[in-house]
Parts: sequence; structure tokens; C-alpha cells
Amino acid sequence: MSQPRLQGIFTPNLVPYLPNGDINEGELRRYVDWLIERGVHGLYPNGSTGEFTRFTPEERRRILAIIADQVKGRVPILAGAAEANVKETLAACEYYASLGIRAVAIVAPFYYKLSPASVYAYFREIGRNTPIDVTLYNIPMFASPIDVPTIRRLSEECERIVAIKDSSGDIPHMIRMIQAVKPNRPEFAFLTGWDAALMPMLLAGCDGGTNASSGVVPELTRKLYDLTTTYQIDAARNVQYDLIRLFDTMIYSAEFPEGFRAAVQLRGFNMGRGRQPLSDEQNTDLSTLSRELQCMLSAHGYTDQPVGGCPIDKSVTSADAAEVSAIVQQVVAELKGRGLL
Amino acid sequence: MSQPRLQGIFTPNLVPYLPNGDINEGELRRYVDWLIERGVHGLYPNGSTGEFTRFTPEERRRILAIIADQVKGRVPILAGAAEANVKETLAACEYYASLGIRAVAIVAPFYYKLSPASVYAYFREIGRNTPIDVTLYNIPMFASPIDVPTIRRLSEECERIVAIKDSSGDIPHMIRMIQAVKPNRPEFAFLTGWDAALMPMLLAGCDGGTNASSGVVPELTRKLYDLTTTYQIDAARNVQYDLIRLFDTMIYSAEFPEGFRAAVQLRGFNMGRGRQPLSDEQNTDLSTLSRELQCMLSAHGYTDQPVGGCPIDKSVTSADAAEVSAIVQQVVAELKGRGLL
Amino acid sequence: MSQPRLQGIFTPNLVPYLPNGDINEGELRRYVDWLIERGVHGLYPNGSTGEFTRFTPEERRRILAIIADQVKGRVPILAGAAEANVKETLAACEYYASLGIRAVAIVAPFYYKLSPASVYAYFREIGRNTPIDVTLYNIPMFASPIDVPTIRRLSEECERIVAIKDSSGDIPHMIRMIQAVKPNRPEFAFLTGWDAALMPMLLAGCDGGTNASSGVVPELTRKLYDLTTTYQIDAARNVQYDLIRLFDTMIYSAEFPEGFRAAVQLRGFNMGRGRQPLSDEQNTDLSTLSRELQCMLSAHGYTDQPVGGCPIDKSVTSADAAEVSAIVQQVVAELKGRGLL
Amino acid sequence: MSQPRLQGIFTPNLVPYLPNGDINEGELRRYVDWLIERGVHGLYPNGSTGEFTRFTPEERRRILAIIADQVKGRVPILAGAAEANVKETLAACEYYASLGIRAVAIVAPFYYKLSPASVYAYFREIGRNTPIDVTLYNIPMFASPIDVPTIRRLSEECERIVAIKDSSGDIPHMIRMIQAVKPNRPEFAFLTGWDAALMPMLLAGCDGGTNASSGVVPELTRKLYDLTTTYQIDAARNVQYDLIRLFDTMIYSAEFPEGFRAAVQLRGFNMGRGRQPLSDEQNTDLSTLSRELQCMLSAHGYTDQPVGGCPIDKSVTSADAAEVSAIVQQVVAELKGRGLL
Repeated sequence: MSQPRLQGIFTPNLVPYLPNGDINEGELRRYVDWLIERGVHGLYPNGSTGEFTRFTPEERRRILAIIADQVKGRVPILAGAAEANVKETLAACEYYASLGIRAVAIVAPFYYKLSPASVYAYFREIGRNTPIDVTLYNIPMFASPIDVPTIRRLSEECERIVAIKDSSGDIPHMIRMIQAVKPNRPEFAFLTGWDAALMPMLLAGCDGGTNASSGVVPELTRKLYDLTTTYQIDAARNVQYDLIRLFDTMIYSAEFPEGFRAAVQLRGFNMGRGRQPLSDEQNTDLSTLSRELQCMLSAHGYTDQPVGGCPIDKSVTSADAAEVSAIVQQVVAELKGRGLL
Repeated sequence: MSQPRLQGIFTPNLVPYLPNGDINEGELRRYVDWLIERGVHGLYPNGSTGEFTRFTPEERRRILAIIADQVKGRVPILAGAAEANVKETLAACEYYASLGIRAVAIVAPFYYKLSPASVYAYFREIGRNTPIDVTLYNIPMFASPIDVPTIRRLSEECERIVAIKDSSGDIPHMIRMIQAVKPNRPEFAFLTGWDAALMPMLLAGCDGGTNASSGVVPELTRKLYDLTTTYQIDAARNVQYDLIRLFDTMIYSAEFPEGFRAAVQLRGFNMGRGRQPLSDEQNTDLSTLSRELQCMLSAHGYTDQPVGGCPIDKSVTSADAAEVSAIVQQVVAELKGRGLL
Repeated sequence: MSQPRLQGIFTPNLVPYLPNGDINEGELRRYVDWLIERGVHGLYPNGSTGEFTRFTPEERRRILAIIADQVKGRVPILAGAAEANVKETLAACEYYASLGIRAVAIVAPFYYKLSPASVYAYFREIGRNTPIDVTLYNIPMFASPIDVPTIRRLSEECERIVAIKDSSGDIPHMIRMIQAVKPNRPEFAFLTGWDAALMPMLLAGCDGGTNASSGVVPELTRKLYDLTTTYQIDAARNVQYDLIRLFDTMIYSAEFPEGFRAAVQLRGFNMGRGRQPLSDEQNTDLSTLSRELQCMLSAHGYTDQPVGGCPIDKSVTSADAAEVSAIVQQVVAELKGRGLL
Repeated sequence: MSQPRLQGIFTPNLVPYLPNGDINEGELRRYVDWLIERGVHGLYPNGSTGEFTRFTPEERRRILAIIADQVKGRVPILAGAAEANVKETLAACEYYASLGIRAVAIVAPFYYKLSPASVYAYFREIGRNTPIDVTLYNIPMFASPIDVPTIRRLSEECERIVAIKDSSGDIPHMIRMIQAVKPNRPEFAFLTGWDAALMPMLLAGCDGGTNASSGVVPELTRKLYDLTTTYQIDAARNVQYDLIRLFDTMIYSAEFPEGFRAAVQLRGFNMGRGRQPLSDEQNTDLSTLSRELQCMLSAHGYTDQPVGGCPIDKSVTSADAAEVSAIVQQVVAELKGRGLL
């Protein structure tokens, strides 16, 4: 309860598969280390990016066991914990608490589209019985929406509900949530799950994000976070513009999260074939996407693979890269100086 | 493969709960018998009405084991078989095949909203590997839509895909599906899941329905089916009008499927408290709904409970009831005469 | 007030244009005669099909003046009368009343999406002051929806509101409207604007339709109406199936109502170029559509133009055509015998 | 063509009505002066806030004639110019050009939901023939959406198309438009019509806004613009938070734009009764809203009316007001110093 507020970029990490479709534990451990080394503030397994619905209940627990063991407390872990019903969800919370997880994130009930009253009742029962801090997870394109009055009510009645992760990308909605909750719960945290709006969300009052892009270019999302939170507006805007291009390429060119899986593969991880079958046309599209992503990542210096065939973008020079790097170092120094890092 | 076409009313039956939230096996068995005795043509456990997402994978199997054991071949069973991914779904199909189930129904992938290409790839992989006949289940308000070209393609490529259950309630869409599939697959079956359009759907070419109302008033849905399929249009229209009132009361007055659970309780079954928590206001609303439903069921002669406090509806007289009953008997005799029953 | 109920097929007729974009009066008069000769029960100018929003207020009046003059009382006219605000709409109603129009149809307010309370207030003010019978026009895909309680309230409070035209294609919604209004207003009329559901709508209790297809194949929609209202279910279903193919080709292959304009052109009218500009690709698509429509119309015997290049559909034989024709003649004789024609 | 880029806050001004429903010219002139005196950068009559669809074509022209005459060049005017079809719209453009208007804004075709190809063809025909600069107006909740490829194509092909006004409130969409257009058209302007996102939109790269709130609290929107464009982030965020409360109260508590009309009335203008009739319940709600707005405006020092009955909000002190005022003056001085004002 006296734990620090959730803050910064939490990576909703993907899970690599073995050829037989099982979890690739070795590669998952290697990926976790790589992310932490590149500056992400935390990890967020079993989220939408992490394909939580495509695992069995046992597999979801195993993913957390592996990651908690690998992280060894270096960064906080936010664990997706939604199961078939309240009883099963609370059992998962118990288990994650036993692993030393920082908090769980629980998506609003999905499949059935529930009314605000039912969404409230669901989270209240969880909030009253959870042994671990809870983050509400609002993703209206996939699950029942959690509206502002519901968030206010839950924040007032359940002290173990400590944050909301919102993936709507709607900034006025984020401001309304902050206005509704902060007066009574100043330590409550607000995280955005919509990468394309990360900079304006942070400027509007968010504490951080759970952004799929950070699993692909953790350096870039970290830079965006640092530039924005130190109000280096023009520099931050440029990074946000670049991030939108990359994000759009990954999210709209293939079935989510396949574009992100292809990109992580390009960063050097063996992700394996996804669990949702693809048609032949989609497999071809994914190859095209991979080439496009490789060029984009190369242009920004984010892939170790050869870049033959990529057009040379003269607008990104090594001078730019050096300049950006210098800015970031300056920011980090500044933050350390203020005791914020 | 040489099995008869799916036809008639398949009840998407609810599951009664014990006070501790577990499945109430005894009451489930009693309910199954009651439905069969009242004329439903088949059962459809683990559908949306049956709250399949609120059970664990093990519970879903146990529900089928209980029902198959109780039905003992009296009516065909259509089993909801969607699991976390294709591998798990096929394992469930194997198990249901071993129980002697007639066919499975598999809802399109949900949570993620998939493109037609992915929906196709998903069902193709299932259709090629299933040991049991498969019914596609299209419910666009809850899951990724299955569009007409996808249905056509799957019906052409996978002979074990033998039917579609569509809950959209869109009659032109149903006609388009029939036009797309029947020329190549004359034995393919088309079932509607939208009770409010059952009569016009049957007249437009459907083979039957999977209708939640049939779990509450199996006598009424059976009557509607018989009147409609024998082209007794005016009589059928009257029953459809009554059914819409009842259906609307159950579906819009409380969180689905709580209204249906309340109504089955009124028919004499101990349904227990649902797994989705309700707020205090909703629990009160449900009491009001129960009174309203009781009066409606009483007015049609469908509840054994006392009807004190219900307004007397003079438009429904015992003469009407007798007339309706006579019509139905005549229809049934006619159908038996033609070897259709 | 003592006028007969609106019933049958009212054609939402298109307006032909001159090369300079003005109304082609001569062709409009010829088209009106052609429609009446082929059996439509009434005309419905200034509807959505008639592109009412693309004319100036003065042009909308001129269209009615021309049509009223040409019809000379042979069939009833239902005139779209929505103008910029209530005052202008009532002025249009006055004018149409002076022309001897049977009734006006007024679409719910559009552009702004109004609440039910505002939709009610708008129609109440019109209903209280209109000098001519009013049909409510519900088309939720283009205008603010008119919900069931609003229709009930308006039907109870305004006797000059005598009908509703609903283009949603939602049959349970139609039944709910009928249930809400008929007990108090047995003479109220219910018309469907969704051609793809005409047969099931009529069987569910509708009095007729305002169907764009009837401007292209008035013979076919009239046949469908006659077969359905005499409960020749199997024959009606076949015609409905054919109509859906034709309707889909016209409505989904080009910007509405360009597909219908192309088809009327193929029936021998000089429709001119539409007022909404088309891109080059769309103009090409329209040519393709025209060829496809020509083949469809030829196959059903509905175009006088040569059919070179059309595939021969063996499923439609002259024997079929003769049979259909015989059925229709029989129906018409029957209807005349009952004094219904 | 060599005119300066559209920039800053353009007020989409309301039109006051006389008791008989006609335009109240005297009050409109007084309102225009009041807005200019309080710092709005321009005016935008005949927009959605200005209820353009509720006027006749002649009234729309008269509104511009009055305003142009009253403004006398003090600020630029952006005139809504959409009429029934391209020919009528171009005629309106001619007229507005003759009045010395800076540019017109043309909403995408509405009522019919057109495809991108048709939206493109419509604006291309206007863009090729207009005698005055054109702003595209994208408001997907009311009209056909203008997508990014369409905007790019139009900006490349039509130099008289100089800006887009977007009311979606979607920041990533705004960034995508900027990325698509700016490389080829660096002088193209981007305006947001969604007050609740004004600050983040400006930080993301917008040039200004057409914000209904600026017709009610021009001082506040001007302050927000000045603070944001000078990167006084914390101060700007506070103003944005206040503006959201006010905006939400006006936009969600009554039928749009009645809440804004009630608020302008409270600022001392006789707005008259709106043209869209209201039900009795809505009229009562509007009274409640007026009281609430009065208290809000009082608390910020924005109404001359007595504030009896309003709760005293201690969080807004005169000290705060003085501080804010000082900041603004400093900003304005800074801007003047840089030749930006």
C-alpha cells in the first residue's frame, strides 16, 4: 500500500513460441533482459499485446513465473490477471502476489458487453478481496468500457485499486478520469495504452504508458518519455511523429499483434509462429511488412540485420542521431540530478 | 457425414449453480429432462446463453459429460467447443466426439476483432482437423463477424463444416448466406439465434433456431416453429408477437442472460446466483423483472407459481389457449402423417 | 382524415437531369407514366432515393408540381417535405396540400444527431400544425433515429400523423412499432423502405413499402407484394431472393443512388449525369455495373436492350417465366375477385 | 494565394434570433464586436455551432453580409459555404468572395454517407472552380469522413484548398494529416474543432482551432492558446482542465448547440428561442444548465450577472486570477516582441 506509484513505460511484452507452439522459455528470458537493458521502466505480461486470451490458465501462470524469476526485482511487473470469473481471477491474484509481482491489471469483462453497473460490481468484488494492488484496464474496442463515474466510485471504495490503464487514445477522456479521481486519490496512477498519443497524453497529465511499441523500440519510447516529461516539446513532437509511423505500420498492416511479433523478430528474437492461424495472403503481407519494418528500424539505427534494399532516407543523418543521443543524455543527467532516476 | 441435417429448435440451455458457485448437477439433469419433455428438438450447451466464457475449460467439459449422460440420445446435442486456441479447441472436439455429441458449434474468435482472412484461416484449420461436424457461430455483437464470402469458402473447402448459427437477426444477411452456400451444399443447415425474428427467418429459408427463449417457454417456441413451418401465417404471427414481448422483457431488463435465468427460476428450477456479480440496483431490478415475467408466464399458462398481483389480461382467454392447442395438435398430426416428426 | 390507409408499393422515384444539370421535366413525366402503367401503387418523390438534399427548396416544389400534374390522381402521392426548419417544412406542407398530394413524408432531423426528446418535439410541432397527413420517416443510417416510445407518443397525440416509413430493415423493430401503435390507432400504416426484407416485413405485419427497386423493376416488386400478401410463400420467397441479388448489385456497387440511376437508364430513360461528382474510378465501376445489371434485367426479361455478352443463365427458363406469369395472373384475379384491386 | 496562413482561434459564432424566429441583426452585430474585443483571432459563421443547416440559402448569405459589414476587416472571416450541391456551393463561394471573406469552409457531403472516392470528387470539383480559398471541414460524427489519403490528394492537386478543420478530436489522426500534407504544402493550416483537446492538439502541431467555447469564454480560449503556444505547459494544462468542465457542461447537458446558446445568453446577449423545438423536459433541463453555467462563469469572473445561490469555490481566488492575468500579459508582450502579434 505504501508502494510507489506506477510510473513510466511498462512494456506489454510478447511471448516467443517454440516450433510446436509451446512457450519458448529461453527466448522469453533473453527478451526480458534485453528490454530491461534498453530502459523500459517495467514489464506487463498477459496483456492484449501478450495475447493472454490465447493461453490456457496454466500457461498464463507459467509466463509470470518465468518472468518474475528472470526479472529478479530489477523492474516492477504489472501482471494481466483476468480469468473466467471473479473466483478464478482472485486465485490468479493470490498466485501473482506470491511471486512478488508489483500489481495486477484486470481488463473489464469481455465477450458479453456489460453495463456500467455490472462493470462496477465486478471490479468491486475483486477490489474488496484482492491480496495485491489492482490496475483497471479499459480497452473499449475489445472489452466492456469502464466509464468515468465507475472509475471514480471504485477509486473511492477500494484502496487496493491504484491505477487505470486506458487504451482508448481519447485524451479528453483521460483528463476527465484524472479530474474525477485525483482529488480523492492523489497517488492514483494513469497509464495510456495508445502509443500514437503517448506525448500528448503525458503532457495532459498521464503518469506513463503500457505501449506495445516499447517491446520493439524500447530506446525510442524511453526517449519520448524522457523528452516529454522534461517539456522538450519540439524534440518530443519529432519522436512522437516517428513513433506514429512505426506504430501504424505494425498495427494496421497485419492482424494485431502479428506486426509487433514480426518487428521483435527483426530485433533479433526467435518469436516462432503465432497461435492465430493466418491465411496464405496474410503470410505474404507479413513478409512485406517485415521488409518495411526492417528499413524503418535500420533508418533509426535499431536493427543489427543487413539493410540491403532499403531506400536511404537522407532526412536521418548520423548527425541527427548524435544530437538526439546528446539530448537524451542531458535529460537523464538532469533527471538523476533531481533524484528522479 | 451421412447424419441428418440440423433442424428445429435447439435450446441454448443455462447452467444452474450451487450456493458455492459450482455447477448444480442434479438441477441441470432435471432441467434437461424438462426441456426434452416439452418438445425442444435439441440442446445447445456452452453457448452464449450458457455463459461458456464464465467456466473453466474443465467445467465446460463436465457440463457436456453430464448432459450427454442425461440425454441418452433422445435428442441431438450441439456443443459449444471454443477454447483458447485452435489446438485446445480441437482437443475439446475430440472429447465431445467421444461423448457421442451430434456436432459442435464454434464461435468466431473474440476479444481481438479479426479480419475475414483470419476468421477464414481459423475455421479452415479447425474444419480440416475436426473429428466431429462443425457449426460456424456468427454473433457479430460479441465476436469477429463471419462474412458471406468466408462462409461460402469454408462450406466449399470443409465438408465437416455442416451448418451456420447466426445471431445477427438480419434476414437479408441470412438470405445471402443461403444463396451463397446452398447451390454447392444443399444439406448445409442455417439456424437463427435471434428469437425476435424466428418466424420471418424460418419463412425466409432457415432450418431452425438456437433460441434462448426456448429454455424458458419451450412450448411457445415449439408452437411457433410448427405453425410457421406449416405456413399458418396469421397464427404464427400472433405467437411471434407474444414471443417478442417476452424476449424483450428478458433480454433488455437485466444483464444478459440474467433475465433468462430469472425466468427459468420461475418455471420451477433452482438456478442459483450467477457468476457475474450484480450491483445492488441490478439485484432490485431483477426482482421487478421476475414479477413481470411471472405475470407474463401466468397469462400464457406457463408457470405453476401463484399469480397474485398480476393484472388480468382479458385478451388471452382460455378459449384462445384451447384453440391454439388444437391448432398445434393438428399440425403435429399433419407432420407425423408426412413422416416429418 | 377519412382517407384510406397508405398501402402497397410507393416508388421513391428518381429525377432525370438535363445535360446542364437541371430537372428533365419531359423525361420525368414519361417515367411517371411508365411506373404507373407497371403497377406501382403510389409515388414517393423527394425521398432519399430521389436525392432531395441535392435540390434547392424551389426545385423540390417544382418536382412535386410536375408529378402531381402528370399523375392526375391515378395513384396517391407521398411527398418528401423536410426543409431547413419547422417553419419552412410547414410552408412546404401547405404547398403540397394545395397540389392535392395524399400525404407528406418527413424525415427525422439530420446532420445533428438529436435525442428522442428533440425528435419528438420536432414532429409534435409539425403534427399539430400540418394541413396534410404526415408519414414519419425513420432512416437511422442517415438521420436521427425515431424510437418506439416516440412513435407511440406521436401517434397518440397527433391524428394527422398517419403512418411510418422505416428504412432500418429491422423486423423485430417493425413488430415493436406495430405493437406500440396499432391498439390505439388501428388505421395507422407501416411501410418498409428496405427492399431486401420486403417479403418478411409484409408477413410480419407491414402494409407496404417505399422501395427503390420498384423504380427499376416495378413488375417484380409488384409481383412480390401480390404473392406475399396472398401467402404464396414459396413463390414469394423465390422472388425475394432474386430481388436481393438485384438490390445488392445496385446498392453496393456504386454510390447510392447511382446504381439505381444506371438501372433506370437501362430500362430506357435518359437519366443524365448525377449531381454528386464521381471520380474516374467510380465512373468506370458504374460502366461495369451497368453491364451486370443489363444481364440481370435481360435474364428476367426486363430490358429492351440487346443482351450481347451476357452469360446465359440456364436456371431461368422461359417455362419458369411463363409459370411465374401464370401465378401472378391468378393472384391478380383472386385479388380482384375479393375486391382488393 | 499569398495570404497569411489561417492561425489562432476562429469563433464558430452562434446567431441570435428575434421573437418571430428571424435573425436578430442588431444583437448579432453587438456579439461580433464583443468577440473581437475579447481577443478571438477570427470568426467562423455558418459552421455546425452556427446551425447552418437550419437556415435557408438566402439567410446563410445574409448572415455573412451582416458580419462582413460589422467586422470591417478587423479579423479574418472563415465562412461556412456548403449548399445543396456543387453548383450552389460555388455560387455561394462567389458571393462570399465579393464580400471580402478570407476563406470558406466546406463540410464534407452529409446525409448520404459517401465513400472516400466521392468525397474526393466533390472537393476536387469545388477546389478547381472556387474563386476563394477553401478549408476542408471534417466532422465524422455528422458528415462523411475525409480520410488522410483524400486530404493528401486534394492538397496536392488544388492550391486553393489551404487548410483543414477537423472536429474529430483524434490527435493521432491530426498528426497523420500533418505528416501527409506538410512536406508538399508547408503553408497548409490545420485547425481543430474539438475544444476538449485544444492544448494537446496545439502541442501536436495544430495551427489553431474553431472552438465553440470561444463564443462563450473568448478570454479563456485565447489564454489557453497563448499559454500553450509559448510552452507554458503546467499553466496551459490547468486552463485546459477548466475548459473541459465548461465544454462538457455545455455540450452534454442539452441538445447541441443549445448549451452554448444558454451560456452566451448569460454573457449578456439576447439569443432568443432556438429553431429546433424542445420538449418540456428539455426546456427545464436548460434552465438547470443555465444556473450551473452561471456559477461556473461567475467563479471564473466571466459573467456580469448576480451569482446568488452559487457555491463559493475556494480553489479559485483573486490571487490566482491576478497571477493568470500577469502570465498572459507577459506572454502577449513576448509574442509582440517576436513580431508574432
